[in-house]
Formats: sequence, structure tokens, C-alpha cells
Amino acid sequence: MTSSAAPTICGLTMQDYLIKAEEFHGHLSPGVTMGGFLVDAAWELLGPTPYINAVVETVVCLPDAVQMLTPCTLGNGFMQILDWGKFALTLYDRETLKGARAWVDRERVAERPAIAGWFLRGAGGLVLPKDEVVAEIARQGRELLQVRPVSLPAALKSQDKVATGPCPACGESYPLRQGPACLACQGQAYYRP
Amino acid sequence: MTSSAAPTICGLTMQDYLIKAEEFHGHLSPGVTMGGFLVDAAWELLGPTPYINAVVETVVCLPDAVQMLTPCTLGNGFMQILDWGKFALTLYDRETLKGARAWVDRERVAERPAIAGWFLRGAGGLVLPKDEVVAEIARQGRELLQVRPVSLPAALKSQDKVATGPCPACGESYPLRQGPACLACQGQAYYRP
Repeated sequence: MTSSAAPTICGLTMQDYLIKAEEFHGHLSPGVTMGGFLVDAAWELLGPTPYINAVVETVVCLPDAVQMLTPCTLGNGFMQILDWGKFALTLYDRETLKGARAWVDRERVAERPAIAGWFLRGAGGLVLPKDEVVAEIARQGRELLQVRPVSLPAALKSQDKVATGPCPACGESYPLRQGPACLACQGQAYYRP
Repeated sequence: MTSSAAPTICGLTMQDYLIKAEEFHGHLSPGVTMGGFLVDAAWELLGPTPYINAVVETVVCLPDAVQMLTPCTLGNGFMQILDWGKFALTLYDRETLKGARAWVDRERVAERPAIAGWFLRGAGGLVLPKDEVVAEIARQGRELLQVRPVSLPAALKSQDKVATGPCPACGESYPLRQGPACLACQGQAYYRP
């Protein structure tokens, strides 16, 4: 991609990507827009990868960009989530463990007040309506990130099958290694009848 | 749905649901097939819900059924994940905190050897090729689950904006509450340059 060409995201025009994002994510956000650029940059550096896996370093927005653009989802196990609060991701080949990590560069963001107001939580930036921030990121996203080759010591996906059995309290199936009852019956239930 | 009618999943024919599942999840699995029935049953009991949220009690397969069928995704924050290893989920209204929880009933599974081989990890069941298990679940999924109204004491989604700053080691943005450096620079990095 040259800087004069209209940006694309994994082969999609920006408009097509934003339509897809609005449909899956439910609304257009700065995060899912920026996330498209991170996926695009990491995948471009990684090159064609038959066994692609992803690690996403935040639960916010970015996982949806990965799930829309790559074969990696939370439920199929090829996208791993770390709740680190970092707007960064790695795409890697689970056979070779070679990957590419992309992240948002704070200093480049800080030079652009329209985007700094979002990414730096208002510290020194303009506070603009969300759709204006989205439009700015759609234009400049590629210039806001860095990407670098990395390797992983091990694949993050666990292949273990864990033994399950009936919880003696509720009767539901649970992993036996969690103790004598399921986590809900151990007091962690988020619901009540 | 009457037991004599062909099963549907959230208004989709089973065939359409399975095509969608194969496309998003990457392959057809027993889990994503069963997951469609859990979402369908919980949503049916809950009824029309403008502010729908989801809690999924496992990271395996089931999150993808929720993300395909509801407006709730990991990245938009309306799907919450608990890594409990339980094949169960709750859909709820985040305004009223009324919900419906659906789960797979071990005893009903145990009566069906074709499905028990999958769900009970081979304990007393037949070990069949995956596509045969998928076909059995597609036929009988609704009979394998239970669903019940629940309420939540509080919405699970955190609305807090956390303060971020540059990590003094790598320069990347991270939540300051995590300590003097980001979690990668505190020794948790899953990658190396």
C-alpha cells in the first residue's frame, strides 16, 4: 500500500470493511476501525499462513476485527484473548510459531489531536464525535501503528481434553479439576433462579 | 416448535444455521451445533429483548453460536465469557437484569449413546465420526437441554474507563492500574522479537 492509495483492510475497501464491522460489531467504533488496520498490517508482514492463530491483548473491540477478517474466532480456539488492556495483537503460524505483532504507537497518535482524544483518553487531544474519529482513523490508521516479526516459544492454544463429571450440587457437567463442585455451586454464580 | 416440525435455530432452518456455522467457526462441530439450540432456547424463553447481553460459561465453541445469532460479541462487550468449562449460557436484558439460562442436561445426553460419546468424553457412549454426531445433535438438540428463567444481581459488563499511560519499558499504552510496567514487560510476554 502506498500512502497515496485509498487504504484497504485485508483486501476489502475501507467502505466494505466498515459495513462489515457495523454489521458484526453492532456499531462503528474507533477501536474496530483501528483493529482492521492492525490485523491487515500483521497479516501482511506474516504473509500467507495456512495455520493462522491470533493472540489479542485486549477484550475491547479488537477481538471483533480479528474474528471478522481471519479464520480465528474465540469459539474455535484459534483466537486467544489476554485481558491486558493493550491495543495490540499477534498473528502467527501455529506450526512454525513465527508471527507478526502489531500495536498502536502512542507517539504517532499523540501527534494527531483528532485521534489522541480517543486513544489517549482525552489527554491533550480533541474530544470529537465518534463518527469523526472513525473517519480520521479510516484515513490514517496505517500510520498510527507499528508491526514487527516475533516468534512464540509455544502455541497458546491448549489441546488438552479435561475430564468432566456431574456436579453433585446442580447435576450439570463441569471440569472435575475445579474441585468437588462446579464454580457456580462453589459460590461464583452470577445468576439466581 | 413442535417435536414433529423440523428444528429451527433463531428463525434459521437447520441447514442455513449449519452453513453459517461452518463459515464463521471454520468447520462444523458438535459444540457449535448444540450451541445454536442453547441460544435458541434461552432467547425463546426470554422473549423480545432490546438490550440483550450474553454470558457464556465456556470458551469452547459456544461463544461462536452466540456471536453468530445475537448482537452480542466479545469485542462489543455484550458477550461476557467465564472460563468455567460448562456448556451453558445466559441471555439477559441489561436494563431489567431478567434472563434465561440454558444448559446441556447430562442425563438426557446419557440416554443417547451417539451424543454421549461426544459430550461425556466417551464415558459410556459411542465414538462416532464428528459429522454423525453433528447430524444427531441437529435432529435432537432441543431435547438435550434445559432452560430456566434467572435474574442477575448486576450486569456483568464493566463500564469503567481505566486510566492508561505509556509503559516505561516498551513505550506502549497500558492500564496504569496494572503496575509500573505493562504485563508483557512484567514478564508475561508470550512472544519474543
